[in-house]
Amino acid sequence: MEMLKVSATSKPVAVAGAIAGVIRTAGRVEMQAIGAGAVNQAVKAIAISRGYVAPGGMELCFVPSFVEITIDGELRTGIRMVVEVRAHRNAPVPGDLGDGSPPVSAPADALG
Amino acid sequence: MEMLKVSATSKPVAVAGAIAGVIRTAGRVEMQAIGAGAVNQAVKAIAISRGYVAPGGMELCFVPSFVEITIDGELRTGIRMVVEVRAHRNAPVPGDLGDGSPPVSAPADALG
Repeated sequence: MEMLKVSATSKPVAVAGAIAGVIRTAGRVEMQAIGAGAVNQAVKAIAISRGYVAPGGMELCFVPSFVEITIDGELRTGIRMVVEVRAHRNAPVPGDLGDGSPPVSAPADALG
Repeated sequence: MEMLKVSATSKPVAVAGAIAGVIRTAGRVEMQAIGAGAVNQAVKAIAISRGYVAPGGMELCFVPSFVEITIDGELRTGIRMVVEVRAHRNAPVPGDLGDGSPPVSAPADALG
């Protein structure tokens, strides 16, 4: 599984783009963050990435757990977050009002 | 939906207990956190609560989004986290080795 390391200085929009890219190709992605600032940026990135993949009919959710990470010979506890697709919805049909009625299309004479 | 407000000084174990309680009765719970410290405590609480409900066969995941909250007349952006049951697994059978073999039970004469 691909792993994204997030720090307190990571830009949420950039991380969100990376999440969306991996989700589209691999269906899931792991993130690791150590410290409150890093965890906060990771959560913001996931919230943003939901909007990136939603038009493709994918709904994301994520599962957090603790992870022990050795940095410079020192053992630290970080947060591991696995982002997954919770549900696939059909991509919205252009003109679909979402009320079960047939999609609205432009009248043929409006196209001429 | 029940809502838990998490702050930077919230104790993750206490919040985790509250999450597990609401999940067992209502199936889902909403959390709100403002600031990196609060978001960090909320994520840790969710990670801990996974262990609380796992013996009941429930797997948790959560969906983050942004939320505008007015505090003392000031508009602030917080993180809203909806915790849900991702999957129900059968509760583990006591003595089940998890390898498909029949559950191991104590010999009858060990009970007398």
